[in-house]
Amino acid sequence: QGILERLDAGEIVIGDGGFVFALEKRGYVKAGPWTPEATVEHPEAVRQLHREFLRAGSNVLQTFTFYASEDKLENRGNYVAEKISCQKVNEAACDIAREVANEGDALVAGGVSQTPSYLSCKDKAEVKAAFRKQLDVFMKKNVDFLIAEYFEHVEEAVWAVEVLKESGKPVAATMCIGPEGDMHGVPPGQCAVQLVKAGASIVGVNCHFDPDTSLETVRLMKEGLQAAKLKAHLMSQPLAFHTPDCGKQGFIDLPEFPFGLEPRIVTRWDIQKYARKAYDLGIRYIGGCCGFEPYHVRAIAEELGPERGFLPEASEKHGSWGNSLSMHTKPWVRARARKEYWENLKPASGRPYCPSMSKPDGWGVTKGARELMQQKEATSEQQLKELFQKRKF
Amino acid sequence: QGILERLDAGEIVIGDGGFVFALEKRGYVKAGPWTPEATVEHPEAVRQLHREFLRAGSNVLQTFTFYASEDKLENRGNYVAEKISCQKVNEAACDIAREVANEGDALVAGGVSQTPSYLSCKDKAEVKAAFRKQLDVFMKKNVDFLIAEYFEHVEEAVWAVEVLKESGKPVAATMCIGPEGDMHGVPPGQCAVQLVKAGASIVGVNCHFDPDTSLETVRLMKEGLQAAKLKAHLMSQPLAFHTPDCGKQGFIDLPEFPFGLEPRIVTRWDIQKYARKAYDLGIRYIGGCCGFEPYHVRAIAEELGPERGFLPEASEKHGSWGNSLSMHTKPWVRARARKEYWENLKPASGRPYCPSMSKPDGWGVTKGARELMQQKEATSEQQLKELFQKRKF
Amino acid sequence: QGILERLDAGEIVIGDGGFVFALEKRGYVKAGPWTPEATVEHPEAVRQLHREFLRAGSNVLQTFTFYASEDKLENRGNYVAEKISCQKVNEAACDIAREVANEGDALVAGGVSQTPSYLSCKDKAEVKAAFRKQLDVFMKKNVDFLIAEYFEHVEEAVWAVEVLKESGKPVAATMCIGPEGDMHGVPPGQCAVQLVKAGASIVGVNCHFDPDTSLETVRLMKEGLQAAKLKAHLMSQPLAFHTPDCGKQGFIDLPEFPFGLEPRIVTRWDIQKYARKAYDLGIRYIGGCCGFEPYHVRAIAEELGPERGFLPEASEKHGSWGNSLSMHTKPWVRARARKEYWENLKPASGRPYCPSMSKPDGWGVTKGARELMQQKEATSEQQLKELFQKRKF
Amino acid sequence: QGILERLDAGEIVIGDGGFVFALEKRGYVKAGPWTPEATVEHPEAVRQLHREFLRAGSNVLQTFTFYASEDKLENRGNYVAEKISCQKVNEAACDIAREVANEGDALVAGGVSQTPSYLSCKDKAEVKAAFRKQLDVFMKKNVDFLIAEYFEHVEEAVWAVEVLKESGKPVAATMCIGPEGDMHGVPPGQCAVQLVKAGASIVGVNCHFDPDTSLETVRLMKEGLQAAKLKAHLMSQPLAFHTPDCGKQGFIDLPEFPFGLEPRIVTRWDIQKYARKAYDLGIRYIGGCCGFEPYHVRAIAEELGPERGFLPEASEKHGSWGNSLSMHTKPWVRARARKEYWENLKPASGRPYCPSMSKPDGWGVTKGARELMQQKEATSEQQLKELFQKRKF
Repeated sequence: QGILERLDAGEIVIGDGGFVFALEKRGYVKAGPWTPEATVEHPEAVRQLHREFLRAGSNVLQTFTFYASEDKLENRGNYVAEKISCQKVNEAACDIAREVANEGDALVAGGVSQTPSYLSCKDKAEVKAAFRKQLDVFMKKNVDFLIAEYFEHVEEAVWAVEVLKESGKPVAATMCIGPEGDMHGVPPGQCAVQLVKAGASIVGVNCHFDPDTSLETVRLMKEGLQAAKLKAHLMSQPLAFHTPDCGKQGFIDLPEFPFGLEPRIVTRWDIQKYARKAYDLGIRYIGGCCGFEPYHVRAIAEELGPERGFLPEASEKHGSWGNSLSMHTKPWVRARARKEYWENLKPASGRPYCPSMSKPDGWGVTKGARELMQQKEATSEQQLKELFQKRKF
Repeated sequence: QGILERLDAGEIVIGDGGFVFALEKRGYVKAGPWTPEATVEHPEAVRQLHREFLRAGSNVLQTFTFYASEDKLENRGNYVAEKISCQKVNEAACDIAREVANEGDALVAGGVSQTPSYLSCKDKAEVKAAFRKQLDVFMKKNVDFLIAEYFEHVEEAVWAVEVLKESGKPVAATMCIGPEGDMHGVPPGQCAVQLVKAGASIVGVNCHFDPDTSLETVRLMKEGLQAAKLKAHLMSQPLAFHTPDCGKQGFIDLPEFPFGLEPRIVTRWDIQKYARKAYDLGIRYIGGCCGFEPYHVRAIAEELGPERGFLPEASEKHGSWGNSLSMHTKPWVRARARKEYWENLKPASGRPYCPSMSKPDGWGVTKGARELMQQKEATSEQQLKELFQKRKF
Repeated sequence: QGILERLDAGEIVIGDGGFVFALEKRGYVKAGPWTPEATVEHPEAVRQLHREFLRAGSNVLQTFTFYASEDKLENRGNYVAEKISCQKVNEAACDIAREVANEGDALVAGGVSQTPSYLSCKDKAEVKAAFRKQLDVFMKKNVDFLIAEYFEHVEEAVWAVEVLKESGKPVAATMCIGPEGDMHGVPPGQCAVQLVKAGASIVGVNCHFDPDTSLETVRLMKEGLQAAKLKAHLMSQPLAFHTPDCGKQGFIDLPEFPFGLEPRIVTRWDIQKYARKAYDLGIRYIGGCCGFEPYHVRAIAEELGPERGFLPEASEKHGSWGNSLSMHTKPWVRARARKEYWENLKPASGRPYCPSMSKPDGWGVTKGARELMQQKEATSEQQLKELFQKRKF
Repeated sequence: QGILERLDAGEIVIGDGGFVFALEKRGYVKAGPWTPEATVEHPEAVRQLHREFLRAGSNVLQTFTFYASEDKLENRGNYVAEKISCQKVNEAACDIAREVANEGDALVAGGVSQTPSYLSCKDKAEVKAAFRKQLDVFMKKNVDFLIAEYFEHVEEAVWAVEVLKESGKPVAATMCIGPEGDMHGVPPGQCAVQLVKAGASIVGVNCHFDPDTSLETVRLMKEGLQAAKLKAHLMSQPLAFHTPDCGKQGFIDLPEFPFGLEPRIVTRWDIQKYARKAYDLGIRYIGGCCGFEPYHVRAIAEELGPERGFLPEASEKHGSWGNSLSMHTKPWVRARARKEYWENLKPASGRPYCPSMSKPDGWGVTKGARELMQQKEATSEQQLKELFQKRKF
């Protein structure tokens, strides 16, 4: 059954987790470029990660084609050299995803994301051409549906949806924005409306913000769609990092990005709360993005086990709410084998010299600063720094 | 070249990371039992993790035989049922490790760890028999050397070393203790002396405590050996979690163990500091235990790159000290592409409602409480709880 | 010179600090009732506190008549019994303030604050009668000007201003609200407009929120006045506690109120930042409320010393920016005798088991909860608790 | 009844709080010199603080003669100029303390503390002469007993006790040391033994460390006395700041000293725990030092109210364990009117950008560093800094 049949039937569809971050920690992706040449260089590593997500409950395996547009691979990844073509990377990604999907009950989704072309102000035709190049591969490899994800500007996301719709396959679209809206100031509700009007059947957010913030953004999208009397399925694939201190551009501006985010990693219990909250909000395509490991995806599947009527394969190796601890030899560890314990735990960081919040870098974080920039009153980075230092706290 | 040839020649030997924790997050190990039947059930997952450590720089691949003694598999893992015999688990572990070791320059080490038999006061002969059973497999599969690891009582560790020495292969021995010593109160220095006298050529600590605490324990072992005029190579394989608040029994007694430890995960930069400190202390076998992912092992290899003269394969996907960020589009992210930045960062937890420290559960944490226990003055858990609540803070 | 002459001439007027909190810690005011019978019972204690504020730089001494309306004294303070009449308390407060004001260059301000009569829905005439009773004393004792302060509802504040204006004396009006506005939802800008239209020459906020939050509220008031083309002097008297985690009703809803607020107490350096920010915003009547001790007021006077051209008497006992440490015997303490050090210090709490933020109690904190209340969907406290637990973090 | 009669009879004697810190915040003492010329300049401020402590339950009023030795006043306080003689300061202190003591049931104690003469290596005779000068005033003014307090070196403390014993009055002696002992490495137990042998009837600690740490030090003193079969009354007057992160020299080396200590201020509930713990340890002279305000002293008196059979005067203005909140209008504030609530509250700092712990400055903090200093291997401050940076965390 296709993605829309499932969602239309009221099924919960569980997405997968974050490939670039997981594979960076495993040694196959370089932070900075974040490009997916591992599909060619180390297919076994990509295959294994897909398999882990499948076992954890993912119903969709996204091709590992993030940042795999030709302009991006050129722009960032010239360290990859010519030996690996954009086409090869995309094709290998499709093959690996399909191979693993066939091991279980999963769909393969081909994904495109924002392009350097757009950011460097290339025109619509050129940007669309970049998407079309990836789409050609997805069509040749016959993926099940398509996702336009990780867009900061709704204008570009709309272009991507328009291209993907040419295929006739179902299209999902997620933006990496928070409740303040896209980088041009379009609020989430209007973003959702534009995406649906362009042809997306599923809309939502991915990346850049933590589960709570992302759900708030999807809530605003839902309100926008309702106000416009439009219908679409909702989708969320947030970070697995706590980011209450983010500014408008999300976790990239946090001083810990990308190599000091560890203390922000969410627990499986945080994810269970997220899955429940997403479900209660009416979201039925629930997954994750950067930081999501297989056990986080499993936590979605376990939280929604009662609704779905089954648990994923990997739950064989996991007792619900810590009940596998009931056999522990120490009585005080056995006492942790219960939901109430883990639900209420406030985990310590073990870092008594570290704060709980950071101040984001970047001029993007405050309206006032952005306005000043536009008025040319703050032209240097130093001036911007000073502006930020005036912020609260 | 064997382990002792390498160490005797002054080489730095990099260990691997923590299998049970990594595979638990990937969906192949159950927290609680923590047994390694995945070697039989899902060899591809174990193989992939070995491969990642190898790429990250590990010179030793430990067979995934933690808690694979027969009594343990019976005791904890009857959920694994009879279908997987202890022997099969151990044999498969050896085969997988060897297969991956052959892909690079790594040794295979067979490992034994503390047994339920000892904890339930079985006699020396019976405990030794359990070790011998695993040793038989290691000999049949011809591992390169042997490790007795994760012992809380030096008495049992000595028995393990004695059994392993029967093989004629080099033996390393690490205890999961902190600076306060073993569970019977034997200080680290004396533990080291006993282990070396029993035949261990390499001694140190693994698991239970964070890098700083573990190094302090090894330092005390070193002092003990010097005082006794004994020589041995030093080894450390600590947790990749910050645990300054641990009591004597380590992180198991922390309220976050094992499902809420995320905010304690150490960064790659923490590991670089650890590797340098370990090296300065004279430790030449430097690895990790629970929580150590491939990127942590790579951080050891990168920190000690100048001394070793080369970087591991996975460093192709990692710029030293964040320099892969130098091509980022945002100037404030580019500004993070330098050692000083990451070295001094105090990462925020993004958890403003969480504390920085926890109070360990368990009667093990204070001398006073332990003494009372022995005097039978505190017999119930409630009494113990009250004792702990009198502790500082 | 009167208050308006000073402000009209562009002078900075420094207010005083928080009497009820300071005298509670000194043993003369009871938390809960917070009534000022100490003016009769222990005039020497009240006199000494006035004197300390005067020495610290206060240009206004407010009569200690907070919650000294007849209905309040009856309502809360029947433990005070009939032996101390409302009139006596108010008269003594005026006498003490005047006595100390005459020791320096300070004005005496008579103050009224919100009444139980209003909260229990008494009519306008009755509420005004309560204010008039206090005003009679202020006129008899000839205070220099009048302050209507600590109002949560602008409607009641307007009534207070109308009564005070009958006197012909200048009237200041401050509300204990945050940026979300008064308890009926009137935004700060509109509150300011109504107060000025009712006759207040000075408007602003006091109590309930920390300096940063309070300044944001005054900024909104200023915008409201500008939009309405009204002119008034601005005034701020915030808490000396950090309250970034407050909901709409301020620090009373924080779990630490009132006996666990210590870790939130602001430093003198925080106050210097506040004073500068207030000045930059155009506020010229700058003081404090609960938690402000004499050294906090001195910090305002020192920060604005350059603008005012002089320092307060108490600065004889204080080196600017820590310079009195320059004679310390330890070199690392001497190294603290500089502005940059104290300006950038992030002071530790010494409380590793405590979080940095709290969740406020009370249904007032979220819009959603308040709306539900109105819809009668949440009728019990338990239901409300549950609503709050769904909030972020 | 004299101090010894009371203690010998098993009475609890409550000390007073910290004058220099309290009066610094009130504007009468300068941080850095910390000298007590306020007794002459502003007797009313000193008198009021004594009175507040008396009302709060203090049974002893210490003359405000801290750092009032002639050499100290010269050394630090030449800003006080010649106009105020050392003798005048001491005499005024005695007069004020006696005047207030007569308002209630309190004893007057004359106090001496460590001298610059000792630190600059003057000989025993010269140091003793300094103490004798102050003692002359105490005798002339006929204080009830004498306290030698705030000594970092037991040698000097012994000299002080010897001088004070010449008077024939009871002598108490407290050192500002932690569990590591005095600055020459004499452990607390031996310090206590030496002080008692020199003639002190009461021994203990004051200042430099928080209540928990100080009680641990007194416990070690008690052990030392028991081992030596000596008898003495025990006394504790700790800081009212949390200092778990202090090194050997206490809070002076914390980066927050003295102007950023606010987030460390202990609550009244912390003090109740301290009072109970002190009592349980056998301490019967229980007071405080820097940071102790009148409400902290009252908390001692309230905690030990059941044992003493009465409450202090200031408890008229304080409901036990927050019960004065039971009349509050908001139900969730009323819910705080109970012991369990305040006892278990972990108060938030409201400072999400601040850590919970600091690293002390100063070479005094680690044994290793001190030893290096002695070996002349670390001669510059820079080298010392580097040494500290190698410390844990």
